[in-house]
Amino acid sequence: MKTYTYEKSRELFKRALKVVPGGVYGHLGPAEGCFMPVDAFPFFASRAQGAYFWDADGNRFIDYMCAFGPNILGYNDPDVDAAAHAQLKEGNCASLPTAKMVEFGELMTDTVEMADWAFFCKNGGDTTAFAIMIARAATGRKKIVLTRGGYHGVAPWTQKAGHPGITPEDVANNLYAEFGDYAALERLFTENRGEIACFMATPYHHPVFEDNRLPPDGYWKKVRELCTREGVVLAVDDVRCGFRLDTRGSDAHYGFKADLECFCKALANGWNVSALCGTDALRDAAASIMYTGSYWLSAAPIAAAVACVTKMRRIDSAKICLEKGTKLTEGLAAAGKAHGFNLVVSGEPSMWFMRIADDPDFDHHQAWVAECVRRGVYFTNHHNLFINTAVSDEDIRFTLEIADEAFAAVKRDGPLSARKGWQS
Amino acid sequence: MKTYTYEKSRELFKRALKVVPGGVYGHLGPAEGCFMPVDAFPFFASRAQGAYFWDADGNRFIDYMCAFGPNILGYNDPDVDAAAHAQLKEGNCASLPTAKMVEFGELMTDTVEMADWAFFCKNGGDTTAFAIMIARAATGRKKIVLTRGGYHGVAPWTQKAGHPGITPEDVANNLYAEFGDYAALERLFTENRGEIACFMATPYHHPVFEDNRLPPDGYWKKVRELCTREGVVLAVDDVRCGFRLDTRGSDAHYGFKADLECFCKALANGWNVSALCGTDALRDAAASIMYTGSYWLSAAPIAAAVACVTKMRRIDSAKICLEKGTKLTEGLAAAGKAHGFNLVVSGEPSMWFMRIADDPDFDHHQAWVAECVRRGVYFTNHHNLFINTAVSDEDIRFTLEIADEAFAAVKRDGPLSARKGWQS
Repeated sequence: MKTYTYEKSRELFKRALKVVPGGVYGHLGPAEGCFMPVDAFPFFASRAQGAYFWDADGNRFIDYMCAFGPNILGYNDPDVDAAAHAQLKEGNCASLPTAKMVEFGELMTDTVEMADWAFFCKNGGDTTAFAIMIARAATGRKKIVLTRGGYHGVAPWTQKAGHPGITPEDVANNLYAEFGDYAALERLFTENRGEIACFMATPYHHPVFEDNRLPPDGYWKKVRELCTREGVVLAVDDVRCGFRLDTRGSDAHYGFKADLECFCKALANGWNVSALCGTDALRDAAASIMYTGSYWLSAAPIAAAVACVTKMRRIDSAKICLEKGTKLTEGLAAAGKAHGFNLVVSGEPSMWFMRIADDPDFDHHQAWVAECVRRGVYFTNHHNLFINTAVSDEDIRFTLEIADEAFAAVKRDGPLSARKGWQS
Repeated sequence: MKTYTYEKSRELFKRALKVVPGGVYGHLGPAEGCFMPVDAFPFFASRAQGAYFWDADGNRFIDYMCAFGPNILGYNDPDVDAAAHAQLKEGNCASLPTAKMVEFGELMTDTVEMADWAFFCKNGGDTTAFAIMIARAATGRKKIVLTRGGYHGVAPWTQKAGHPGITPEDVANNLYAEFGDYAALERLFTENRGEIACFMATPYHHPVFEDNRLPPDGYWKKVRELCTREGVVLAVDDVRCGFRLDTRGSDAHYGFKADLECFCKALANGWNVSALCGTDALRDAAASIMYTGSYWLSAAPIAAAVACVTKMRRIDSAKICLEKGTKLTEGLAAAGKAHGFNLVVSGEPSMWFMRIADDPDFDHHQAWVAECVRRGVYFTNHHNLFINTAVSDEDIRFTLEIADEAFAAVKRDGPLSARKGWQS
């Protein structure tokens, strides 16, 4: 297959460099340090539909990043978009919320097993920050425990001291434990008894640049008991996994009950809304905090969310994504094996991580990802992937064909370090 | 005129109380402590168009809160909405930005006088937090100076130690000066020489519950010189004033140049986008920080923003809002005078604050606002008001008629403390 070129993306990038620091940001930007072979990647999209996006040069990609999560039902899902458009005609961002907020609150408390209430904002990070504030308000304690390498947004408290712009005070109350290490967590709780407000973690561990880790057997049950015993609020950051494992919440999927649960990405299929769900015990603490934003109750994204959650429940999107992801990742591993590469797949199949084994610095893996991308299969190399319900069997067949070609190309042309012009 | 009742709003509120902490949030919620006579207020909107919204009971209001700022051209402005809808057909939130991001960056650097670059996010608070991080990264210092009572969002660092959910460490690096007090600022800068990363303030002071304050003559010029001399980043929080004083930025309006300037509310007429603008000297610091969000480069709100900024420049929306606001506030003060009330108007007329003088606890003022609201003029009592370009001369005439009736009602029926059922 002919490989793509990106003339228009490069032209746009040159223009972007003048008016946006670093030209692009996030996972393609200079601060992430992901060392992608940028020459193999498009930088700008022109259009998106279903499982695909088209870049500025008109190249089509099957998109396994799904906008980094929001795309769960396929881009421009007709049911979700119809609900949003109907609301837009009436109004969107006004001085008061609409009945849609109430409807969404009722739907979330009916859908998410742990939820007695829901609170709506915009970013996933708005919900994780609010969860910590609620836990502190409820317990009168200030320390929080996070997992090493866990991602809860970009606010200073989620970053590392010494990183640009972060002060020691920003993270002064943070303690860290390895995800899945119950003994380490119990030790921290004992050493800081009466001082810990909250333990916040993702349902399973999905850091960048390393294998994702599922919770060990019995882990969450023991963590739940420990938190209850020690009076610590258990907050699950389900921003990324939410609705890709279980529409009842990822805590329900793993058989426990969180006190607070954060949702965002898949909530409205690309319309922007986030939600913090909580239990009755934390309702008054939540209401005591001044926490608001101009767009948080905008009615169109909330109408989209109501339609999206309703549809995700109806079709069981989580089950579909888990099944499609299983089929795809098994096929990718088989394609690798056929060329002598051991493709290690980790995490849950609806949101998997992959890397070629025995491959220091992701040297072969980066080259393989780049060979896939410039043939129309959009992966990134250092971040977990996502799947959506619009990916068809034919899409998966095409993906596996491209993956096969890409493994052959890596075998033939070597890893990233052997490619001219791919080190930029 | 018949006064409104709110049966459907109350029913919705009862339902909301079950599924959302406090039932509503923000300025109507329990955490704000604004002691409004809630029986006189609608709690839910059903529709918005131009200068109006309609509540859940079908009552029409001329809306002088403008969604707390976003409504600058009238709700559902046809030009802005057409641009957003055209983009929605192509796609919105995808794995890559679109050319619209570049276009918006070019438009902002061409529009905002101080801007060499722009960075886009969602909340106003995303931009104020990023400004602080950039200042810290650029200077290697960690203290920041804020103005007492200034509002920069809801993140913990913007709140007060001791408030629910806020730790001493959240605000450990904050210093405070009175807005407009140059001597106090200079003293803080001297006492903390070499330790201050940033001075952040709004262009003029618009706190809640007190008269808004314009910058004293020469204040900003001296502040600019002081910041330059001491190597402190001067960040202007133009989230609320932006495009209501001057399309070139409120710093240009007051004759100085900020290093960083935060925009959000009026940027896209209700579509959700925010922007941090900066100078070349801070470009590398901005690019060095990992700062991103799933929806920050969504193309539809950015397309709306491009159309909105273009239209605001074309029609000079700031001038229109200043003129309409002047006409309205002069009329309101005259209406008060006719009934023996001294209505004190402060701030800039496009975003004014008002209160009845010699009125402890806003006792008469709250009653007057409530009498206006239940006759179809939507004010709040403790927050600055907003105007938009869709407010017509007839709307102003109607507003002044209602204001007159409301003053008469207060004279007749007394202040808030004299009303049964208005203390909830």
